[in-house]
Amino acid sequence: MNIYPKSLEELISFYSKLPGVGSKSAERFALATLNFSEDEINDASKILLNAKMKLKKCPICGILTDQDICNICSNENRKKNIICVVEDYKSALAMEKIGTFKGVYHVLDGLISPIEGVGAEDINLAPLVSRINNLSNVELILALKGTIEGETTTLYIKKIFSDKNVLISRLSYGLPIGADLEYLDMLTLDKAFNDRKKISD
Amino acid sequence: MNIYPKSLEELISFYSKLPGVGSKSAERFALATLNFSEDEINDASKILLNAKMKLKKCPICGILTDQDICNICSNENRKKNIICVVEDYKSALAMEKIGTFKGVYHVLDGLISPIEGVGAEDINLAPLVSRINNLSNVELILALKGTIEGETTTLYIKKIFSDKNVLISRLSYGLPIGADLEYLDMLTLDKAFNDRKKISD
Repeated sequence: MNIYPKSLEELISFYSKLPGVGSKSAERFALATLNFSEDEINDASKILLNAKMKLKKCPICGILTDQDICNICSNENRKKNIICVVEDYKSALAMEKIGTFKGVYHVLDGLISPIEGVGAEDINLAPLVSRINNLSNVELILALKGTIEGETTTLYIKKIFSDKNVLISRLSYGLPIGADLEYLDMLTLDKAFNDRKKISD
Repeated sequence: MNIYPKSLEELISFYSKLPGVGSKSAERFALATLNFSEDEINDASKILLNAKMKLKKCPICGILTDQDICNICSNENRKKNIICVVEDYKSALAMEKIGTFKGVYHVLDGLISPIEGVGAEDINLAPLVSRINNLSNVELILALKGTIEGETTTLYIKKIFSDKNVLISRLSYGLPIGADLEYLDMLTLDKAFNDRKKISD
């Protein structure tokens, strides 16, 4: 189909690269973009370049930042010896949105996955080890997802710190708030049942 | 929430301006964008500027083009006296995707809507009148949607050409292909019933 002018087609194909954006949405986005003011478009063009150039991983925790060290690692009020381990930046953002976690993060490069050939040495664990060696009273919270890969990574991390004086915990499994038992997958329901908590008087 | 670095926040807020994109999708798009290569980002930045600068309305029909006159109006094989009237560029694109229409378009600036204060003089009708005055054997196909605004505009256009020798038709109403009668709105079903066609032998 050659129904679009070239400049429009290029814009549509840029938007098509975004995750979950099909040709219909890309077309809608492109047409909406044309309604932006010239200033907005100039800004957008700069914003794209800026984001790509300025954003890099924090050398301490791996969170994206446009400063030397990320806001969280450079925040004096965050406890440096409580480290939440997440598989990617998105998961750290999700934790931050809750707003109650007062420690810092360590962002892995994904999870161990033998099937996809991702080993323990590929997921940015070494910096975590050297980081913890320089701290005392460390609490490590493993916030990894409940899949085989998440479980494997959780167990592996637990193992490498077993001989060190590190308190390791993990997020609890159970019912999502508001979920109908009826529609819950059996694995989750089973976890929720086995991890049931006594209601205190 | 101040959890994003500034350059990322700007990128997210750019994507949030797109239609139907909420904060979650915008975040996802922004993070995906950071995974693009530097070349892709450079291109994207140029594409945005390019599209905004180059694309303008075809002076004849109003379709977006990056040439002097759009591909359709400048195509010798398209019949210039068969004009399909649509409310916007998107509708013209939808018609083009079918690929069977061999005439040309006239893109209105929306539809007459007394409630929103849009009158007949606001929707780019004058160029259609002068265009038709210079043609003979004109067929006008009104491809406007079946809402009050669409109906009003259809009737208005029919009226202004009533004393001219113009064949005016409209798209048919009826069942969408594959639709369950059960779930169809009553108005459409009523239309489909009243406009029923005799099955030829």
